[in-house]
Amino acid sequence: MTAPHPRLSINQATIKHADLRTALDVTRAAGVEAVGLWREPVNAVGLDTAAAMLADSGLRFTTHCRGGFFTVPEGAARRASIDENRRAIDETAALAAAGAEGSTAVLVLVAGGLPEGSRDIAGARARVRDALGELAPHAEAAGVTLAIEPLHPMYATDRCVVSTLGLALDLAADFSPHVVGAAVDTFHIFWDPDVLAQIARAGREGRIATYQVCDWKTPLPADVLLSRHYPGEGVIDLRTLTEAVVATGYDRDIEVEIFHADIWADDPAAVVRRTAETFGASIAPHLAPALAHPA
Amino acid sequence: MTAPHPRLSINQATIKHADLRTALDVTRAAGVEAVGLWREPVNAVGLDTAAAMLADSGLRFTTHCRGGFFTVPEGAARRASIDENRRAIDETAALAAAGAEGSTAVLVLVAGGLPEGSRDIAGARARVRDALGELAPHAEAAGVTLAIEPLHPMYATDRCVVSTLGLALDLAADFSPHVVGAAVDTFHIFWDPDVLAQIARAGREGRIATYQVCDWKTPLPADVLLSRHYPGEGVIDLRTLTEAVVATGYDRDIEVEIFHADIWADDPAAVVRRTAETFGASIAPHLAPALAHPA
Repeated sequence: MTAPHPRLSINQATIKHADLRTALDVTRAAGVEAVGLWREPVNAVGLDTAAAMLADSGLRFTTHCRGGFFTVPEGAARRASIDENRRAIDETAALAAAGAEGSTAVLVLVAGGLPEGSRDIAGARARVRDALGELAPHAEAAGVTLAIEPLHPMYATDRCVVSTLGLALDLAADFSPHVVGAAVDTFHIFWDPDVLAQIARAGREGRIATYQVCDWKTPLPADVLLSRHYPGEGVIDLRTLTEAVVATGYDRDIEVEIFHADIWADDPAAVVRRTAETFGASIAPHLAPALAHPA
Repeated sequence: MTAPHPRLSINQATIKHADLRTALDVTRAAGVEAVGLWREPVNAVGLDTAAAMLADSGLRFTTHCRGGFFTVPEGAARRASIDENRRAIDETAALAAAGAEGSTAVLVLVAGGLPEGSRDIAGARARVRDALGELAPHAEAAGVTLAIEPLHPMYATDRCVVSTLGLALDLAADFSPHVVGAAVDTFHIFWDPDVLAQIARAGREGRIATYQVCDWKTPLPADVLLSRHYPGEGVIDLRTLTEAVVATGYDRDIEVEIFHADIWADDPAAVVRRTAETFGASIAPHLAPALAHPA
């Protein structure tokens, strides 16, 4: 078997049922160089332990998933959410510092849906902007980039009112690109007639905080959250999207993040190997050749 | 019970399992003045009979559903699709002529998804434009407006590659607005951050061929095609969308089109009454007062 592409990063959600120890071990054992982590398994062992385990793994750290869920109006729930996001920012900084050279301090944000009983999607979007304003100074001080992730419009009301890359960039516009960027995930935005123009814009504005890949096909499963597939096993034109991202100059790691019941039920080591194979076949050929590191 | 709003039209899909006779009877019996029909039940009785039944009902005819499904590359299947669309145009003209005064000759088009084995969504969209170019002269000669219906992006790959009102208007741009317009359906476009600007544009360009309403809520059912609800029973801001459509000067009938297993299983007469009630509560208050007809 050929070595995994050096820019592949395994997002921990792809092997959701693996604890942090297992996730790091199987990623490294497969020859993958980078990993994106999730808050729950990190906090299950405690941040200091997680950071030590990450440092010991020798893996680069690419993103922390996830913050956000701040569309509720002012009140105790909103204060709790902002506080939780500040903790997530601190975790991100600690993990990025513990990861190998080339790690990035990126916190992925999923905005949240409509508050219970609300039909005001425009208001919810305005509160996302407000939350970014509250969190930006803390993120900047911590050296963390907040990555607004547009989610597919089928999640617009119950999970993420930010449905397009264009809206994510509009929300980010008032902030420095080092502080607020966007997550570019093929699954969520491939359908957008404006996707290539918005990827180019994101690059021009310096806001591609992370590039994540997986695939889409129908029929959707009963739980539409779990409809993500290995790259190349669906109908997304991954070549065109990847070339558009490469054309912006994005040269960092690329995560594969898959939510799928069958994949979660599989052996994590096998899933990481399969992820590396499918990445190698469907993403790697569209990346610029890696530059040799100076000796 | 108060009379249904005079601009309410029952789209036959809302009472899918009713044959044409039943659909016309229950619509008229409820005091509703207009109806949108589907090709299958019309062709089940034959076009001439259907037109006579419609004329006899005294109902206005609002749309014919549906044409489209022309994203496949050149070949026999594409030729068959174009021919089928020509027949649908002719049916639309015949039914509009048979409907009561104020009927409109509008054929709703659902573009179709990615052809089998294809990942080329841009190519599929280009073939939609090509099909419109082929069909426009026939539609113009028949006095029929083709209404491109953008469908929610969750249907982008298997049903309709036209995912936004903006794209529908871009595709329509080369044609006269009397020949090619767009269907504005709340369910499909409410999530779009650009929806209000695109509704205004559609009005300015004279391309709102039909306004259709129903509602969205989550969780989505296992078959995501059947996730449409009575207006007001979900989370769409129907007031803001309806006011935006009214602001364009749109003053014609408004269809309620619902696909839902429970509603389809219900008694058609009860469904029409419930549709009139929910329309009265959630749409009618946002319409300009009806002008009295001159005596």
